[in-house]
Amino acid sequence: MKALKLRKVAIDTYKENVAYLHRDCPLYRSEGFQALNKIEIRDGLETTAVIAVLNIVDDENIIAPDELGLSEQTFAQFHGKEHSAVYVNHAVPPSSLRLVHAKIAGNRLAKKDFLRICSDIVNNRYSKIEITAFLVGCAEGGLERDEMLYLTEAMVETGTTLDWGESMVVDKHCIGGIPGNRTTMLIVPIVTAHGMLMPKTSSRAITSPSGTADTMEVLAKVNLNQDELHSIAQHQRGFIAWGGTANLAPVDDILISVERPLALDSKGQMIASILSKKIAAGSSHLLIDIPVGPTAKVHSQRHALKLRKLFEYIGDRTDMELEVIITDGRQPVGNGIGPSLEARDVMQVLQNDPNAPVDLKEKSLQMAGRILEFDPDIRGGQGYCLARDLLESGRALKKMEDIMALQGSKLISTRPAQFHYQVLAPEAGYVNAIDNLQIAHIARMAGAPMDKLAGIDLHKKLNACVNKKEALYTIHAEFNADFQFAKTLAVKNSGYTIGKNIEY
Amino acid sequence: MKALKLRKVAIDTYKENVAYLHRDCPLYRSEGFQALNKIEIRDGLETTAVIAVLNIVDDENIIAPDELGLSEQTFAQFHGKEHSAVYVNHAVPPSSLRLVHAKIAGNRLAKKDFLRICSDIVNNRYSKIEITAFLVGCAEGGLERDEMLYLTEAMVETGTTLDWGESMVVDKHCIGGIPGNRTTMLIVPIVTAHGMLMPKTSSRAITSPSGTADTMEVLAKVNLNQDELHSIAQHQRGFIAWGGTANLAPVDDILISVERPLALDSKGQMIASILSKKIAAGSSHLLIDIPVGPTAKVHSQRHALKLRKLFEYIGDRTDMELEVIITDGRQPVGNGIGPSLEARDVMQVLQNDPNAPVDLKEKSLQMAGRILEFDPDIRGGQGYCLARDLLESGRALKKMEDIMALQGSKLISTRPAQFHYQVLAPEAGYVNAIDNLQIAHIARMAGAPMDKLAGIDLHKKLNACVNKKEALYTIHAEFNADFQFAKTLAVKNSGYTIGKNIEY
Repeated sequence: MKALKLRKVAIDTYKENVAYLHRDCPLYRSEGFQALNKIEIRDGLETTAVIAVLNIVDDENIIAPDELGLSEQTFAQFHGKEHSAVYVNHAVPPSSLRLVHAKIAGNRLAKKDFLRICSDIVNNRYSKIEITAFLVGCAEGGLERDEMLYLTEAMVETGTTLDWGESMVVDKHCIGGIPGNRTTMLIVPIVTAHGMLMPKTSSRAITSPSGTADTMEVLAKVNLNQDELHSIAQHQRGFIAWGGTANLAPVDDILISVERPLALDSKGQMIASILSKKIAAGSSHLLIDIPVGPTAKVHSQRHALKLRKLFEYIGDRTDMELEVIITDGRQPVGNGIGPSLEARDVMQVLQNDPNAPVDLKEKSLQMAGRILEFDPDIRGGQGYCLARDLLESGRALKKMEDIMALQGSKLISTRPAQFHYQVLAPEAGYVNAIDNLQIAHIARMAGAPMDKLAGIDLHKKLNACVNKKEALYTIHAEFNADFQFAKTLAVKNSGYTIGKNIEY
Repeated sequence: MKALKLRKVAIDTYKENVAYLHRDCPLYRSEGFQALNKIEIRDGLETTAVIAVLNIVDDENIIAPDELGLSEQTFAQFHGKEHSAVYVNHAVPPSSLRLVHAKIAGNRLAKKDFLRICSDIVNNRYSKIEITAFLVGCAEGGLERDEMLYLTEAMVETGTTLDWGESMVVDKHCIGGIPGNRTTMLIVPIVTAHGMLMPKTSSRAITSPSGTADTMEVLAKVNLNQDELHSIAQHQRGFIAWGGTANLAPVDDILISVERPLALDSKGQMIASILSKKIAAGSSHLLIDIPVGPTAKVHSQRHALKLRKLFEYIGDRTDMELEVIITDGRQPVGNGIGPSLEARDVMQVLQNDPNAPVDLKEKSLQMAGRILEFDPDIRGGQGYCLARDLLESGRALKKMEDIMALQGSKLISTRPAQFHYQVLAPEAGYVNAIDNLQIAHIARMAGAPMDKLAGIDLHKKLNACVNKKEALYTIHAEFNADFQFAKTLAVKNSGYTIGKNIEY
C-alpha cells in the first residue's frame, strides 16, 4: 500500500475524528473512498491506528494529493509527526455493532457485550451515528438494571482507576439541573476538616451557567495534574479540582458528546455515567443528591424513589457504600448563579456572614452531616450538628483557605460586572414559582460561565412577599451583546411566577 | 448582528452540511459558538436559511476571521455568492425533535407528526445524530403499520411528485440483495413493446456491485433531465434512467445516507422508502419482488409473507395497485455481476442468444407477465405467454434499441478487463450453496461498479456438477490493486459450497 504524508489541518472538529484527502489523491480513486466513509490511518510502525471520517478536499492549499490531513484533535491522538509516512485503509465496521443491533431489537446484553462495545467506543471505532444508535437502543426502558450495572462496570474497566490508598474515600454527586447549588464547595472543607478523605474532582459547565470547577476557579487554580492532586490530598485530605485530565471512564465523555446535543434523557445512561466516574475516581462512599421539582430533572417523588432504588442496586453490586437523599429542587439553591456570584455565596457561608444564603448553608450542612455519618465513630443523627460546629467554628473556612493555598489561590476580583439589569416584579404578591431552566438560560446568555462575573443574582426566593416593581433579580454581564440578549430573554419570560397568595 | 463574508471552502462533506468559522472571529467569541454546534446561516434578504454543523478553523488560509466558510454541498444549497454578506446564529433545535423522543419512548405518532419530522429533515434541520435517533426509534417493531403508511405519505408530500398524464403507469421493484438480477432491463422493453407506459427510474449501486442505472449506463446515457425523460416516454412508452435528479421523496435519500453506514435493517423504513419513491415517481401499478434465500435480505417464506402483507396494506391505502411476488433468492440471477457483464447477459436474452442465462430470462418473463396482466385486456394467466412472444419475436430487442437510441446509445466496449482470475472447485461434487453477500463483496472489491468492466462471471450455478479444479467463476478487474484485493478475498472464501450430493 502506498504511503501518504501526514499533515495537520488546522480545523477543530471537537470529539469527531476527521481526515482530509485530496480528490486527486491516487488512493482515493483506487480504493473507492467516499466522503463520510470511515478510514483507518496507521503509521509505518503499525503502532498507532486511528479511525476517522473522511472529507474530500478540492483545494491544494488545504491538502495536497500526496498528503493525508487530520483535524487538530485527530492529529493529537495520532502521535505522529508532520510529513511522516502514514497508510490508509477502509475502516472495518466495529464487530460489536451487531450487539448494538441486538440491543435495538430488544435483546438483553451480557457484561462481556457491554465491554466489547465500550472498548470499541474508547478506541474511536464508533462513528457518531453508531454511538447514537447505541444510546437510543439503551434509552427509555431499553436497559434492565443488570444491564445498567454491566454498562457501569464496562465504562470503568475501559479507563483509568485512581487509588488513594485508603479504605474510605468519600464523595458526593448531584444529578444536576438546579442553578447555584454549590454545596460541594462547602461539604469538602467541612468533612475534610473532620479528617475524612474527600479528593473531589468536578466538572465544568456544559449546558449550565456554571460547574463546580468553574466556580472554584474563581478562588483557586483547578487545572492540576495527578501528582499535584495526590500531594494536596495528602496534606489537606481533600481538594476541589477539575476532573477532566484523568482518563476516568472515557467512554462516558464520548457518549455525553452525542447525548447532549440530542437532549436524550436516558435513566440507565445517567446512572452508569455518574457511578462509573465515581468508581473510577476511587470513591468508596458516595452521597447522591436527587432534587425534585417541576423544573428540576426529576419531577415527582415517585420518580425520585425509582431512581434511588436503581442507584442503590448498582452501588451495592460495585462495592460502593451509597446513600441517596431527595432534596427540594423547586428553585435555585443560593442567590448567585454564575461563577463569581456563586463563589461569593460560598465564601459568605464559610465566613458565617449574616447575608449568606440560608438555603445553601442548610442544604450543605444536611449533606455534609450525612457524609460525616459514613464515619463509624459518628453516631447516627449526629452528623448535622458536627457539620454545623465545623462550619460555625471557622474550621471549615480555615480548611478552605488551606486547600485554596495549595491549589494556588487567586486574587479575587472585587470589580462588579460591566452591565447590570434589574428584573422587577410586575405586580405585588408572592413568588409562587421560579423556573430553574429559564433562570439558567438567562444566566448563560449573559455570559456565564465563560465570563466569570456574568450571571444572575437572585433577590427574592420562593414564597417571598414582593411589592410591585421590587427587584426580583439582577442580571450581570461583561459584554453588551450578551447583556442585550439576556435582557431580551428576561423581558420575554422572567422565569418568576408572582401570585396573590403563597402556594404550597 | 454583524455580517460575515461568505466563502466556499473546497471540502466535500457529502450529505452533511458543514460551516467553518475562524477561532478569532468576533462572533465566535461573543455568541459562544463551539465546534459541532449547529448554526443557522442567512443571507441579507433573509430568503435563504441553511443549518450546518460548525467546525472551528485555526488557519487563515482556509478561512479569515471575518469570513464564514461553507463546504461545497452546503455552499451549493445556499444559493449565495462568494463575499456576499451572511448572518449567523445558533440554530434552534428542530421542534419536531420532541416527537422523535416520543417515538423512542414507545408512543404512536400521527400523520401530522411524521409530516413535521420529514419537513424538518428535508430542510436540513436534523443533524446526523438526530436522524439516527429517529431511525433507531422507528426500527425493529418501532412502527405500527399505520405509522409506516404515515411515514410513506409524509416522505411523498415533502418532495416532488411526477405526473405522466395517464391512468396506468407501471413499475417494478426488487427489495434487493441479489447480485446480477437485472430483470428491469428486460421487463421495460417487453411491457413497453406491448404499449404499456413504464418510465423507469433506477438507482445506482451504493453497497452492491451494480445498480440498474450503472448497468444501463454501459448501453446508453442514463443521466437525463425531466424534459428528456418525458419526451422519450412519449415516443417509446418507457426508458431506463437514473432517478437521482428528480426531487422524489428527498427525505428517503437523507435517511438512507445514515441508515446505510449503520447497517440498520428496519422493515418499516424499507417499505416507506420503496413505496414513497414509487408514489412520487407517479407509478399507479407496481410489482414488488421479494427474493428469499439464506443469503438474501429475507431468509424465510414466513418473513416474506409478513412483508408482503405490509406492502399490500400500504399500497391499498395509497391508491396504488400493488402485487408482490416471492422469488428464489438462493443465488445470483444471471451469470454476470458488475455493469458490463450484466449488460452482456441482458443483451443475450434480448437477442435470444443460446448462451443467454436461463434463470434471468425466466424470472424476467414471469415478472413481465404479471405486469402485462395489469392490462384489463389481458386474461389472467396469459401474461407469461405474451411476454415470451414479445421477447422471442425480437420485438423487445427492437424496443430496447429504440429506447437506447433516444437515451443516447453508447459504443459498447468489446475489450476484456485487464486482469482475470479463475476461482476453481477445490474438489469434485455439486454446487450446494452460493453466498450472495460474498460474491457481491468480491465483485465490488474487484472494482464494480466504478470500473464498468470489473466484476464476476459465474460459470456454475446452484446444483451444477463440477469436476475438481473446474472453474466456478472468473474475477474481472481493471486495476492491479483491486485485482489483488478481490483475489485474496476469493481465495479466503470463494462464496461457493461444494458437496458430495445435490442438496434440496
